[in-house]
Amino acid sequence: MRIAELSRTSGVPVPSIKYYLRIGLLPPGERTAPNQADYGQQHVHRLRLIRALVDVGGLSIAAVGDVLASLDEQGANLHDALGAAMGATFPHDKGEDDSARRAAREWVETFLDERGWDDVDRDCPTAEVLIDAVTTMGRFEYLDSLELVNVYADIMEKLAPFEVAWSGRADTPEGVLERAVVGTVIGGIAFSAVRRMAHQHVSSRMFGDAADS
Amino acid sequence: MRIAELSRTSGVPVPSIKYYLRIGLLPPGERTAPNQADYGQQHVHRLRLIRALVDVGGLSIAAVGDVLASLDEQGANLHDALGAAMGATFPHDKGEDDSARRAAREWVETFLDERGWDDVDRDCPTAEVLIDAVTTMGRFEYLDSLELVNVYADIMEKLAPFEVAWSGRADTPEGVLERAVVGTVIGGIAFSAVRRMAHQHVSSRMFGDAADS
Repeated sequence: MRIAELSRTSGVPVPSIKYYLRIGLLPPGERTAPNQADYGQQHVHRLRLIRALVDVGGLSIAAVGDVLASLDEQGANLHDALGAAMGATFPHDKGEDDSARRAAREWVETFLDERGWDDVDRDCPTAEVLIDAVTTMGRFEYLDSLELVNVYADIMEKLAPFEVAWSGRADTPEGVLERAVVGTVIGGIAFSAVRRMAHQHVSSRMFGDAADS
Repeated sequence: MRIAELSRTSGVPVPSIKYYLRIGLLPPGERTAPNQADYGQQHVHRLRLIRALVDVGGLSIAAVGDVLASLDEQGANLHDALGAAMGATFPHDKGEDDSARRAAREWVETFLDERGWDDVDRDCPTAEVLIDAVTTMGRFEYLDSLELVNVYADIMEKLAPFEVAWSGRADTPEGVLERAVVGTVIGGIAFSAVRRMAHQHVSSRMFGDAADS
């Protein structure tokens, strides 16, 4: 199809498509004339993923570039490619390692040891995000903050096998990576929304007018 | 304490404290001389919350202002104050309601009906976020995407009572609101990090080198 039809099919405006082509997020179409190219289903597919990551996932164009680079990398083992894609969807500026943060880092390492989550890379962006959250919880001096993290881990030990198997329901390694990215990023947003709705529902019963009567 | 000590105790630089005072995020200290004020523990407390929301929660200064306004509002019932604070921590630009989004909105309404989550405000920012996520999932044409949302709801029906009770472990309504904000925002970030670590752990077994041998 021509670029105008690609735009209609994908819902992405022509200037955005041209921009993605220029910066290499979208692979070039097949040239059919000096000023004309033909695009296929893989372009529709790729545009859909770019827009999902940017519009719903809130990723920067640079982060999307990193995710797509790991999707396109050939021959890497799927676990490593997933790790690279996931790291790119969770960018993080490393905080300064003062004494509170060093204590939080130790807590996270003990937590991972006790869980037996030996395959988790302790220097990955995700670990830094958890260390930041634990540092902040520590500042609030609620002695029961870290209880939350362990409750979350109990839940994820049940949910993760289901989510990872969900990503695995695809015919090709690229399909698995795409589902992993969509499941992690869009699924993560859906989870946050469902979590807050469930809080609303429960808090209404616990703290709302109904509880006063 | 003077502003210099407030800065040392809270870890927030003096220029930032002056900025928060100027825009009203931080209430003024008690004036002790024409150019001098005295600050108390409630200022340390408030600064801690501002920095947690900005640095770890990623909230804008405007969103922090909205959260603090609902914390400061007197007499509102706690459930409504929680709702206002939570809406402010989850800002969302409403997407355009095309046919795909209208279908997603219907799906979310049926989902809430079937769950019996009658107390959830169907026009709140959180509902719009879920509608966006469901719209995006629909675009990927995986017929099993919405399965994820129902699995998340099953989990949250168990987790929400624990989390809301966790917020409730405070002596004052302000304490409950502060814990709700910290639990929702910082807890939410901790949950995302734990979720991704659990995926890493499981995916290594399912897709890593170990799975090949």
